[in-house]
Amino acid sequence: MTAVERAAAALDAIASSGRPEIWISLADPDTLLAQAAAVDARVAAGEELPLAGSVVAVKDNIDVAGLPTTAGCPAYAYDPAEDAEAVARLRAAGAVLIGKTNLDQFATGLVGTRSPYGAVRNAWDPSRVSGGSSSGSAVAVALGLVDLALGTDTAGSGRVPAALNGIVGIKPTRGLVSTAGVVPACRSLDCVTVFARSLDAARTAVRAITGDDQEIAARRIRDRALRPAARPARQVRLGVPFPEQLGELEPGWREAYDALVTRCRAAGAEVVPVDLDPFLEAAGLLYDGAFVAERFAAVGPFIARHRDLVGEEIDPTVAAIVLASGEPTAADLFDDLARLEFLAVAAERTFADVDALLTPTTTRHPTIEAVRADPVAINAAMGRFTNYANLLDMASIAFPAGTVSGLPFGAMLTAPAGADDLLAGIVAEISRDGDGVELVVVGAHLSGMPLNHELTARGGVLVGPVRTGPIYRLYALATTPAKPGLVRVRGDAGGASVVGELWRLPVAGLGHLVAGLPRPMTIGSVELEDGRVVPGFLCEPAAVADAEDITAWGGWRSWVAAR
Amino acid sequence: MTAVERAAAALDAIASSGRPEIWISLADPDTLLAQAAAVDARVAAGEELPLAGSVVAVKDNIDVAGLPTTAGCPAYAYDPAEDAEAVARLRAAGAVLIGKTNLDQFATGLVGTRSPYGAVRNAWDPSRVSGGSSSGSAVAVALGLVDLALGTDTAGSGRVPAALNGIVGIKPTRGLVSTAGVVPACRSLDCVTVFARSLDAARTAVRAITGDDQEIAARRIRDRALRPAARPARQVRLGVPFPEQLGELEPGWREAYDALVTRCRAAGAEVVPVDLDPFLEAAGLLYDGAFVAERFAAVGPFIARHRDLVGEEIDPTVAAIVLASGEPTAADLFDDLARLEFLAVAAERTFADVDALLTPTTTRHPTIEAVRADPVAINAAMGRFTNYANLLDMASIAFPAGTVSGLPFGAMLTAPAGADDLLAGIVAEISRDGDGVELVVVGAHLSGMPLNHELTARGGVLVGPVRTGPIYRLYALATTPAKPGLVRVRGDAGGASVVGELWRLPVAGLGHLVAGLPRPMTIGSVELEDGRVVPGFLCEPAAVADAEDITAWGGWRSWVAAR
Repeated sequence: MTAVERAAAALDAIASSGRPEIWISLADPDTLLAQAAAVDARVAAGEELPLAGSVVAVKDNIDVAGLPTTAGCPAYAYDPAEDAEAVARLRAAGAVLIGKTNLDQFATGLVGTRSPYGAVRNAWDPSRVSGGSSSGSAVAVALGLVDLALGTDTAGSGRVPAALNGIVGIKPTRGLVSTAGVVPACRSLDCVTVFARSLDAARTAVRAITGDDQEIAARRIRDRALRPAARPARQVRLGVPFPEQLGELEPGWREAYDALVTRCRAAGAEVVPVDLDPFLEAAGLLYDGAFVAERFAAVGPFIARHRDLVGEEIDPTVAAIVLASGEPTAADLFDDLARLEFLAVAAERTFADVDALLTPTTTRHPTIEAVRADPVAINAAMGRFTNYANLLDMASIAFPAGTVSGLPFGAMLTAPAGADDLLAGIVAEISRDGDGVELVVVGAHLSGMPLNHELTARGGVLVGPVRTGPIYRLYALATTPAKPGLVRVRGDAGGASVVGELWRLPVAGLGHLVAGLPRPMTIGSVELEDGRVVPGFLCEPAAVADAEDITAWGGWRSWVAAR
Repeated sequence: MTAVERAAAALDAIASSGRPEIWISLADPDTLLAQAAAVDARVAAGEELPLAGSVVAVKDNIDVAGLPTTAGCPAYAYDPAEDAEAVARLRAAGAVLIGKTNLDQFATGLVGTRSPYGAVRNAWDPSRVSGGSSSGSAVAVALGLVDLALGTDTAGSGRVPAALNGIVGIKPTRGLVSTAGVVPACRSLDCVTVFARSLDAARTAVRAITGDDQEIAARRIRDRALRPAARPARQVRLGVPFPEQLGELEPGWREAYDALVTRCRAAGAEVVPVDLDPFLEAAGLLYDGAFVAERFAAVGPFIARHRDLVGEEIDPTVAAIVLASGEPTAADLFDDLARLEFLAVAAERTFADVDALLTPTTTRHPTIEAVRADPVAINAAMGRFTNYANLLDMASIAFPAGTVSGLPFGAMLTAPAGADDLLAGIVAEISRDGDGVELVVVGAHLSGMPLNHELTARGGVLVGPVRTGPIYRLYALATTPAKPGLVRVRGDAGGASVVGELWRLPVAGLGHLVAGLPRPMTIGSVELEDGRVVPGFLCEPAAVADAEDITAWGGWRSWVAAR
């Protein structure tokens, strides 16, 4: 699939997704397609572009030239003179940038509801929060609308939404990715992050945006010995909190976490209990102490000047937090800095004993309604395991670790600054799902289409867009809801390539799907453009006799969009 | 000389020094002598004690068990439960601790005048400040009353007094010496420092008090590559400020500094101009910015609770500074921290090019009267070159570099954290004074005695106490001022060992001394207890015919004290 085709498919998917609140601004389609064509030209000219063909969304506190940056506040909007450095690096690697995503205003929240552009609904269950503050970015990836998205993370904003939407969120060691061109939240803690549906895709993007001419990061982890290489799980020691330190979790999450720990041990890792108290106390300093004043340094004066907009263009919860953060004194902050230094030493002792901490990513997956009723306390609870990472200068990866009651359960590995490769190696081994089966869909089960929930509710995860081999015809069946029928042609005459999506789902999930399949739908073998043969939706030939042949549209979405 | 003898001599010297304001408290003499006897016993038992025989003074913001800690404020005084860690290490190395020295209250100042215990007078010129805040410690060492003294240094308090009294002040890399048991000034910046009359003596003491189980320091300079070894001057690159960045200096200091730079080049070092602006701007952040709030975190609440004592037990200038330091907000501090990080990167770039900065230690040597008239601005000017070292995490040594108009001129080498050995190596080479001559004195030229200024005004530096060989008699001459006459006996009969001091003075200084020597004094060869023969004061035999034989007193001080 060319970059142009990928971009066009993304535009279609976004238009039919029914999730407008994901986006604050979208690229002009002609501009986008021209940029994609330029990528195809570079590839044709022989350039190695690791992200060619990728469509990327960018959280709207990160500058993208040609689109305004709002940070979630219309009154704050400005037109950036140039791309943020991470964005420029994405483009250099061949990505095309399709739009700016919604966020908790000024990146102040872990919920995804604190925005005048609307609360962002969860990809799996629209009554629940997306998580934040990188809300739109995570949902855009989880719904398959884009391949990658940039977020930011101060206290968990690049990881909580990953967990709540069943995707991967990488928070690199602070400083490895430049924050030039990012609206600051807590300037000394902020990281640019990556969301993707797979670890490999996320890592490719992180590599592309990393620039360690960043003297600040380089000073801290200059010694290559402080950047441990990946190694097999059986050579890894993981620390898990004392049981009572997990706190109150969503029902079923404790069991899912215990199952994950069992899988880790089965993979050969040593798993040992560690005292999470120093980390939890450090986390408490971030929001209950003077550290929050860094938010005032970032946007306090702006909000103070626009108090008349609070409740309209300025989210009232965000305004209250930021304005209150002007209160602590520098003397208070020195006290907290001294306490943090002490806790950092305790944390370091922990990592003399284990390589990484394994925890749930977050504690709750509330409904949007529940958060509206209690905007602060729920948010605070959700940051339990994420709040300490940047304060204590650590790298962290949030990854999918199963589903509970049809919703994603996410876990997280956290380790000292520089351990990015080590973490990725562990995630690759313990998040492998040996039970999955691939399935091609071309119609009502596509992302954003009416039956997609049948996949996601059964633990399905989108792998990416695909095309069939050029040996099929597509028909519009007279079903409710409308569905296409895919039929293989006889011989090689008259066939075409049809656009669809490849999903991975647990074997049991596929079993359930097949058991409930209504006529005339069948599941058989579908040949992909690259020659692979995977299970996929077909239909009984009898059903297409009176059906309209819509092969010329190329795929179901295009035909639906044109009606 | 045994530890007991040394301690007894020190008690005598202190008693006759006429400088009571040096001390806030003194050890009970019996206790001191018992401690000294215990040291002698340990030595006799074969223990290696690098500081055996050393008498040490301790700045009164550092805990010494058995003596109160006041931090220069009577109302603040407490009886510490135990020695500060640095003090415990001194004792373990064989030192005896003779008393707690006066300081700028709460270590807030570079002048030595901010104390209800009195302004500390300079060792060379009592109308001038001693410098601070480690005022008493520096003067006690410069006057030869003790061998070593501990100070502290936040913004220069361990270095400015060294420069103004012609001695060595070592400020080690922060964290190498524990600050446990030290009343904090700016807790994240404070260092324990050492004063001594020679670099070797200072380094021996620093080694004794260093304990790098201090995890905080170890984390920062763990990589041994960050602790460069000493190397010859010809392999060293020194950075000097652009000429206009030296600022306004005391008359003659610019020339003395240029002469030092010339000596460095003559020793083979490369000397290159560097831009001091990042360092100067960082220095400005310490007192004009939010960093000063760390002082409030240390003693602000105490002073706020005792406002009624301001002007009496609490120095009014110190009170004003500390109370005002409660004002800056944490948001202000975050702004300053971000600025400092930027400046730290610029500073680090400087040290990619040079090994150390060479500057004057301070800019002014004001009179006590001038400081009383302008307590704040003069103090600020004096910190120009010292203020940035701890903020930028650097090691620094202040060393004597000549005299100007009869007063000491001090210079300073400063380098990144961990460069302690490198700095000491450079100081050893460039501060060597090849022109000096040793001179034994036994009477009115002793430290604290009426003619001592004749030595110090000519660039004399006390090497230490000595005893003559057992072949002399001492007489009280009928001179004004009173002076002893030292006469060698004929043969070996009836001679005794007389206590005196060994001084080093420039050749020209000795020439001037001799030229002005009044009858019946002579300068001849004096044999020391260890067999060395050095120039020293003797007298014409005719003068002792009617003089009282005071040999039985052992030395001049004892006889004077008993009159």
